[in-house]
Amino acid sequence: MIIATGPIFGRHATRAAPVPVRAMGLSTDFYELTMMAGYHAAGLLVPATFELYVRELPPHRSFLLAAGLEQALDYLENLHVRPEEIQYLRSLPGMQDVQPEFFEDYLAGFRFTGEAWAVEEGTPVFPLEPLLRITAPLPEGQFVETALLAHIMFQTSVASRAARLIEAASGRPVVEFGARRAHGTEAGRYAARAAYLGGCEATSNVEAGLRFGIPLSGTMAHSWVMAFGDEATAFRRYAEVFGGRAVLLLDTYDTLRAARVAAASGLTPAAVRLDSGDIVALSRAVRDILDTAGLQQTKIFASGDLDEWRIAEIVAVGAPVDAFGVGAALSTSSDAPSLGGLYKLVEIERGGAAVATMKRSPRKYSYPGRKQIWRVFENGIAVGDVLALANESGAPGGQPLLRRVMSGGRRELLPQSIHELRARRRAAVSQLPASIRTLQNSARYPVSFTQALEASIDRLSRSAGSG
Amino acid sequence: MIIATGPIFGRHATRAAPVPVRAMGLSTDFYELTMMAGYHAAGLLVPATFELYVRELPPHRSFLLAAGLEQALDYLENLHVRPEEIQYLRSLPGMQDVQPEFFEDYLAGFRFTGEAWAVEEGTPVFPLEPLLRITAPLPEGQFVETALLAHIMFQTSVASRAARLIEAASGRPVVEFGARRAHGTEAGRYAARAAYLGGCEATSNVEAGLRFGIPLSGTMAHSWVMAFGDEATAFRRYAEVFGGRAVLLLDTYDTLRAARVAAASGLTPAAVRLDSGDIVALSRAVRDILDTAGLQQTKIFASGDLDEWRIAEIVAVGAPVDAFGVGAALSTSSDAPSLGGLYKLVEIERGGAAVATMKRSPRKYSYPGRKQIWRVFENGIAVGDVLALANESGAPGGQPLLRRVMSGGRRELLPQSIHELRARRRAAVSQLPASIRTLQNSARYPVSFTQALEASIDRLSRSAGSG
Repeated sequence: MIIATGPIFGRHATRAAPVPVRAMGLSTDFYELTMMAGYHAAGLLVPATFELYVRELPPHRSFLLAAGLEQALDYLENLHVRPEEIQYLRSLPGMQDVQPEFFEDYLAGFRFTGEAWAVEEGTPVFPLEPLLRITAPLPEGQFVETALLAHIMFQTSVASRAARLIEAASGRPVVEFGARRAHGTEAGRYAARAAYLGGCEATSNVEAGLRFGIPLSGTMAHSWVMAFGDEATAFRRYAEVFGGRAVLLLDTYDTLRAARVAAASGLTPAAVRLDSGDIVALSRAVRDILDTAGLQQTKIFASGDLDEWRIAEIVAVGAPVDAFGVGAALSTSSDAPSLGGLYKLVEIERGGAAVATMKRSPRKYSYPGRKQIWRVFENGIAVGDVLALANESGAPGGQPLLRRVMSGGRRELLPQSIHELRARRRAAVSQLPASIRTLQNSARYPVSFTQALEASIDRLSRSAGSG
Repeated sequence: MIIATGPIFGRHATRAAPVPVRAMGLSTDFYELTMMAGYHAAGLLVPATFELYVRELPPHRSFLLAAGLEQALDYLENLHVRPEEIQYLRSLPGMQDVQPEFFEDYLAGFRFTGEAWAVEEGTPVFPLEPLLRITAPLPEGQFVETALLAHIMFQTSVASRAARLIEAASGRPVVEFGARRAHGTEAGRYAARAAYLGGCEATSNVEAGLRFGIPLSGTMAHSWVMAFGDEATAFRRYAEVFGGRAVLLLDTYDTLRAARVAAASGLTPAAVRLDSGDIVALSRAVRDILDTAGLQQTKIFASGDLDEWRIAEIVAVGAPVDAFGVGAALSTSSDAPSLGGLYKLVEIERGGAAVATMKRSPRKYSYPGRKQIWRVFENGIAVGDVLALANESGAPGGQPLLRRVMSGGRRELLPQSIHELRARRRAAVSQLPASIRTLQNSARYPVSFTQALEASIDRLSRSAGSG
């Protein structure tokens, strides 16, 4: 019997349960509500378009993997404000001069009725490229900013880190172990989802296993060994419950001594786990001990503060590590815990016509107009993206990345299994130039603007206002 | 009328709503469940004690502020596993050889029945000091590890960062603006709570305002200005809804031009906000423009990628900034997004007697036995902590920091208002030596062990096993 149910040591049937996001109407910044009230009072309910993107990449990223769209769409579709929430809002001093109609009619019946275009999850994206484009009555588009950024940017950060870990592991499985390091239990759940989407083989997070159908992996903790006092007893008692092919943890007291205990136990462990110390030296010594005992089939699993650099080092020297467990590096995207995502107004209807808008703060430009991303391929490899206005016909050899996923507040993109998203990711990442996939981040993927977009930027840069 | 309802520009009555944490029975690592099943099968239901702590501080921290206990206790009190969750667990390959009684009797009726001792929220803590100590039947104590670490370590990381930002701001208010950067909406909510507990004056997070009674702060976004096309119109329309004392955002196009527009508008803005550019130079120029127009009462609010170093710089040169808005630095504790918290078995009943346990992996020691922290004061200043076994009588001049907060699975520490916790934090931080509160982190707060604890460590270090 195999206790690590990840695909490393056996795969189990995965069943996706429905994925409800509790629609938190007030999971937003206060200014979104004051502005909504303002737009309502000013009668400014015209269509407006917002785009969600990053301005630049963190130092150790050469691309991002879009993720979190599923939760974002679920949020948009279920968004509403409950009566007790409205009562709270009315009690705030800043809101007491707002017309009662805003609360009683507008907020009480509030639903998101707009349209969304998005890059599908698992797609590599680059700075300035919209991951999501929302067109909705101005107050609706405004209201959803905070939660959309939180949902999409977090999962995108984790999926992007996962892609680097997978690259470093060079074919060896990586398992997400970060629930305890995550920013709360919800964050742990979505981190597991994004990590699997980004290429991990399994998660330790049981809730994520149930909700998203992700394979689970679990071994034993140091406390198991400590509870029985010594490894000989602990390993034997574990095997009595879970069979001889369990995964045994070696580093509670003395790793090599524990390896000898495992080798002499008469068990045939599926794997042993090293969680501390010099993984390269220990894995070699443990491999010898296991092989000498005829346990060539027993794998070696390494964990403990691993990141892509450490994994690449272990792989580069040919240490006999068969799989890696990664925690905080994944669940907090520890070297880039925030991607600084933006959600900017790019177009608004004024006098019955759509007008492009542009922010021009120092070093904080936004680019005007509804956009489409065209990814240009040569011989099956993505050689560059072209950022175009949405009404342009596209770039030669290019494929559009944004597709309509919601209209009239209803999803058009139906929920997809995480396995499909993961397969898309694999294909899309393999189409990136090798230089963009390396850890060193030396190359820059080319993203250019069409002439029409350039012209729009030039025109707005020279004007006094926004359009 | 004042739109920023934070205490900077007016305070509103705060009302705490009940704070339900949805008890997520499966928000745990898979190995917690396999070990539980193993303990159950082995009949190992004896009392065990676990302690939650950090082994070391991140580079830029000289202390941590304990936080998240409220959510941890709520989790413990409401923990259960639902029938559909049990069904899922039974379907996993790793679990199919487990006795049916484990699922049908043990898990189906599972409740946390143990005892908890904790450092109260808002208390400074140091490496090796338990923030939480759980004594419960072994499988119960094991099961709760993952969620307890996630709840407590996340809020502790945010509260600890807040303490540094408050120190840097040197009396100027700091407002938490990080919801959009947080790792999902739940993380944003708890980040707002921890930031306020840690010393921030308000949050932008409306849900956190409702749930925890935290004052809200909100101004306007660039999109408001862009929606109207120019500042003159945008400011006037805002004032029509919210009155002349609003907070006006200046950096959508050109900060100084916008400041002149604000100055000439006939409004008396409560404040103006700068969100980009050279905050020192801009704040001085904007102050001049406002003062010349007779708007000496209008405050200047700065935001945009701020951290404690940037704030300290702005304060050091005497720039006329009255308050700060901080995002990712707070809500993701960006320079230390994971504290590497541990939850270790320190004692277990064996043969009817409590036996101390100790892990001795390289650089990953745990320290044996149930412990108490004694904080020793001289002239009202904390001069050092003594880590003692729980049954020791304490250190001279010392106050015990761990108190019992739960017994028999029921809370003894009733929910406290966030304002009380915040007041405790203020008092406790002010009792730290000044050298420990500085940003530079040059001094190390002394934490020593009692002789009895040292003796226990020595004894276990020499023994082969754990007790």
